[in-house]
Amino acid sequence: MEELIKFNVKTKPSEAGEYPVVIGSGIISKPLIESFAEGRRNFIVTDENVESASLCSEFKAQDDKFIISPAGEISKNIKTVIEIVEAMEAAGFGRDSVITGLGGGTVGDMAGFAAAIFKRGVPVIHIPTSTVAQADSSIGGKTGVDSSISKNAFGAFHHPAAVIIDTHTLKTLPEREYLSGLAESVKHGLIMDSGYFSFIENNTAELIGRGDQALKHLAKENCRIKARVVEEDPCEKNQRRILNYGHTIGHAVETLSNCKLLHGECVSIGIIAAGLIEIELGIGSKQRLERIENLLNKLSLPVRIPDYISKDDILSLIKHDKKAVDGWPRFALIEDIGKAYTKGGQWAHPVNARLVESAVNQLKQQAAR
Amino acid sequence: MEELIKFNVKTKPSEAGEYPVVIGSGIISKPLIESFAEGRRNFIVTDENVESASLCSEFKAQDDKFIISPAGEISKNIKTVIEIVEAMEAAGFGRDSVITGLGGGTVGDMAGFAAAIFKRGVPVIHIPTSTVAQADSSIGGKTGVDSSISKNAFGAFHHPAAVIIDTHTLKTLPEREYLSGLAESVKHGLIMDSGYFSFIENNTAELIGRGDQALKHLAKENCRIKARVVEEDPCEKNQRRILNYGHTIGHAVETLSNCKLLHGECVSIGIIAAGLIEIELGIGSKQRLERIENLLNKLSLPVRIPDYISKDDILSLIKHDKKAVDGWPRFALIEDIGKAYTKGGQWAHPVNARLVESAVNQLKQQAAR
Repeated sequence: MEELIKFNVKTKPSEAGEYPVVIGSGIISKPLIESFAEGRRNFIVTDENVESASLCSEFKAQDDKFIISPAGEISKNIKTVIEIVEAMEAAGFGRDSVITGLGGGTVGDMAGFAAAIFKRGVPVIHIPTSTVAQADSSIGGKTGVDSSISKNAFGAFHHPAAVIIDTHTLKTLPEREYLSGLAESVKHGLIMDSGYFSFIENNTAELIGRGDQALKHLAKENCRIKARVVEEDPCEKNQRRILNYGHTIGHAVETLSNCKLLHGECVSIGIIAAGLIEIELGIGSKQRLERIENLLNKLSLPVRIPDYISKDDILSLIKHDKKAVDGWPRFALIEDIGKAYTKGGQWAHPVNARLVESAVNQLKQQAAR
Repeated sequence: MEELIKFNVKTKPSEAGEYPVVIGSGIISKPLIESFAEGRRNFIVTDENVESASLCSEFKAQDDKFIISPAGEISKNIKTVIEIVEAMEAAGFGRDSVITGLGGGTVGDMAGFAAAIFKRGVPVIHIPTSTVAQADSSIGGKTGVDSSISKNAFGAFHHPAAVIIDTHTLKTLPEREYLSGLAESVKHGLIMDSGYFSFIENNTAELIGRGDQALKHLAKENCRIKARVVEEDPCEKNQRRILNYGHTIGHAVETLSNCKLLHGECVSIGIIAAGLIEIELGIGSKQRLERIENLLNKLSLPVRIPDYISKDDILSLIKHDKKAVDGWPRFALIEDIGKAYTKGGQWAHPVNARLVESAVNQLKQQAAR
């Protein structure tokens, strides 16, 4: 037998760290951003919608930026990331750069991923400007962009250097887009904090009117809850899966709606689907689901599956869910408002296909009962 | 003054880890690779040269692979990485994949970077098949690929899950390419281990003849030295810079040779340049440099700058070295064979431009004196 030489190379652990989240109204400014840039040269990534909203007059003179066009999911691909990196190179940016992502979730994904891979990694500052991005995607370090074949084929975990949340950026959002993002806030209350769920229930008028105080509280609680989950489980091995609440059937509906429904609207539908499954499993109740549905209704969020989407298409699609194990997804569930359902240390659960089918049926037949 | 809400999000440290290095002769086999794949589906990235060398008959039936064509630096770009990822997607690979890079340094870079960004990261197994890759690039987790504008514009730090070194893969390398890689071994001896330097001096005949025993010892010592440096400084903040020994002027010569000289050949020239600078700084000696030059000569490695490369072009290029600070690079230096020169805790040093110019002049005028 050939003599083999074997030994191990040690890899050093990364150090524990932290990054600041700053929340206010009308706070976006160059000096604030630069206070987190640590002397690095700043490159701004934004999109044409945010650019035309002119969130900060000081940015007018800012030449070092990349404006994603067209705005939205359609540009969230590896091609755009290459364009961002090559624009930085053309402008002479090097390792001592920082990228600031100013925009919604897709801008944050592209800015974050570009920062993760530019010259083996530079810091990123997130300034989320949509309800969804403020509630969800700016915290946690997940980035992902699409290939020509699938969503989020490329990605990395890359924590931001800082997150700046300015509630004024929400004022110019179209009504439907604004409300859609509140579904993620409802989700956060459901999985983690009944007091926060009640806050949303008791402040729907101020939230719908986009009052600064309510929006700041919303941003703070969203970040706090999201941070609590991702601090425990940064790479989505287990607990982080609870953030997927309402997303399994929600994603399928989103895909099948062919861009007619917004992400948050589909999460709203998915939350009702999860509630129906919980009732079937004996960990939910009709009363609880009605309370949730009432809140989603007040926020003008949809709670049933549109007629043009078929049950069979949904069931077929969730078999291909990226989190599927052996061809069937695990479901994040709650056992009470504010309390995730865990069993044997697991935060996502196998659910019999017939139960899922029954929930989808009910969501098709009537407004969730 | 607007009331700001501020708090910090904690990021969890990654755990300390380790990965195995296995060295032998004629050891490449599917079962060995699979023993490190932990049940993941394996996708092989290789290039047309390695493919035609048929290093392992078991691979013939292996359909899940991407063959880089043309082989070499010219394909080491983001476009090829996208092709690799999309080939994996087309073949149904998902998060439970492992990528095996079978080839030289450019294959390792592309396989490693693809693994770093595919679905936010999958493991990579390196099977380096060139002297350079076995000595250098397979250990340490650095990956990088080029944009259309510059080298290594894209990259990530991504440690391998395992490194398999089979000295038989070196047997089919063209003579010049094989010898070129030995420059990195000489460098390792110079910066870290005088005993290893002596081993190379005392075994030039067996090394030139590619004897298995000498090659296995070489691989072991190279990995051990490289591992020692990168374990201390995984992200190249300081100590890792010593690995750049001979590379500052070497890189400039490499670029200006327009692919006429191989990487290791330019490192050989750069090692002599460093030796001349050390003499000028009073930390080297003519005797020491002669000993080093004798060894490089025995290995048929060049020790002077070719006539077609001008001094001015070299000096102009090193101003743009990617590790330059304020327009001038820092130099990794040694104070003795086997002992890096450190000062004030620093492993790379500012050197007066006139000294560098003088060293380049001497390297141009005669065979390094």
